[in-house]
Amino acid sequence: MSLLDRLSLNQITTQRWDLQQAVDGCVRNEVPWIGVWREKIHEFGAEHSARLIRDAGLKVSSVCRGGFFPAPTEGERKARIDESRRAIEEAALLGASTLVLVCGPPFDKDLAGARAMVAEGIAALVPDAAAHKVKLGIEPLHPMMLGQRSVICTLAEANALAGQFHAEHVGVVVDVFHVWWDPTLYSEIARAAGRILGFHISDWVEPLPDIIYGRAMPGDGLIDLRRIHQAVFEAGYRGPIEVEILNTAIWERPGDEVLREMKERIVEHL
Amino acid sequence: MSLLDRLSLNQITTQRWDLQQAVDGCVRNEVPWIGVWREKIHEFGAEHSARLIRDAGLKVSSVCRGGFFPAPTEGERKARIDESRRAIEEAALLGASTLVLVCGPPFDKDLAGARAMVAEGIAALVPDAAAHKVKLGIEPLHPMMLGQRSVICTLAEANALAGQFHAEHVGVVVDVFHVWWDPTLYSEIARAAGRILGFHISDWVEPLPDIIYGRAMPGDGLIDLRRIHQAVFEAGYRGPIEVEILNTAIWERPGDEVLREMKERIVEHL
Repeated sequence: MSLLDRLSLNQITTQRWDLQQAVDGCVRNEVPWIGVWREKIHEFGAEHSARLIRDAGLKVSSVCRGGFFPAPTEGERKARIDESRRAIEEAALLGASTLVLVCGPPFDKDLAGARAMVAEGIAALVPDAAAHKVKLGIEPLHPMMLGQRSVICTLAEANALAGQFHAEHVGVVVDVFHVWWDPTLYSEIARAAGRILGFHISDWVEPLPDIIYGRAMPGDGLIDLRRIHQAVFEAGYRGPIEVEILNTAIWERPGDEVLREMKERIVEHL
Repeated sequence: MSLLDRLSLNQITTQRWDLQQAVDGCVRNEVPWIGVWREKIHEFGAEHSARLIRDAGLKVSSVCRGGFFPAPTEGERKARIDESRRAIEEAALLGASTLVLVCGPPFDKDLAGARAMVAEGIAALVPDAAAHKVKLGIEPLHPMMLGQRSVICTLAEANALAGQFHAEHVGVVVDVFHVWWDPTLYSEIARAAGRILGFHISDWVEPLPDIIYGRAMPGDGLIDLRRIHQAVFEAGYRGPIEVEILNTAIWERPGDEVLREMKERIVEHL
């Protein structure tokens, strides 16, 4: 597959579009894959969404997201796991091979305790993932997001966690924005061979406009996209390349313009 | 020494004070140590500053900062090293045992290349550090600051780098704000035993007000200060505990109030 055959629009990149608009935009701009967010799917219902995507000839690269495991009570932790079960079912319905796991922030100062709850949560989900033939993709998030999004913040940790389970069911998602700074990045990507379930791209500009909503168009920033992509390729990954840009300024732009630019950028920078 | 005997005011915490005011503030509030910034020292001249601090009965915990090694040309890299040599001389004059190294951002996408320049820069400084009996403290900075401040962003990396040199000359500085998120934190603190040259505290609140100027008063945030302090203590560190808070809102407050609060906080939270 060429790069463009592997291109996926992660829906958050065109946040103002609903699912129908995003699907139409992908068709118009010949983007063959779409990465969906559950909130967007729920607007149309999972079954209708699945049909809408399939009828347009698109494939779903991933569903975002399950996880958010740490919680102070057993009841709350169980509720989070149940919510992730519903996410697995939706992923199966949509024909997505991967559910992205954003593992969740801690609820107190005990990070090790929160990380143990993540491992327990994933263990609880593996039978469901197996039954639905959906893989769980642990996405390490940038350490600056620990307090808001994820206690799993390095690829080393994600690899170690995934390694506790069969590669048929649990792997990792490599998002350049989250991991580019890591001095162990290339060795950890090599170690993830056979477990890489997704590859997400965007870029990092200085000064960063916002911790959550400040990601840039691939090629506009400091990240060595080509080298990271090459490492992921050498580790055997041939799946979709999702452009996932959380950026309020880019959300203001016409979606078609953003999709055209995405296509130019991956050809130029990967 | 009790905690309060080890307390140091890092000058940046009371950014509006000049050196004279900071020294007077420390004396008034019985803070026995001060961590100085070169810009602040230069306002008074290094010799006058040294006398002013000594006459007040204060001790200098560290000088901030040398480093910023990566640069595109050999001439620029040499200029950065020369600047760090002047910082070493100033540290010696001030009676500081440690010069903090902020290693510097990359100037292009080649992070490995920038990291190699950091190692070369430190190697070039070691003879000067030895001659002046000043130790070089490699401070890993939070990964979110890589693009602005430092390609050295984990304690593991700082330990590996320091390990290339004699412990008499090169060690690491542990700042909780920069390292609290790290799943390898406690093993790396243990590994740093005998090399810990400084311990800096502040806190991390959510949402973080600013990447550079958004640090919080110790105890106000998510960081497990007590556990990290205990780990540093168990690794043998008995030196000054610097309160280093870069926060524009705290800078607006009266310095004496900030110093009183610092003292309460370290007693309560360490």
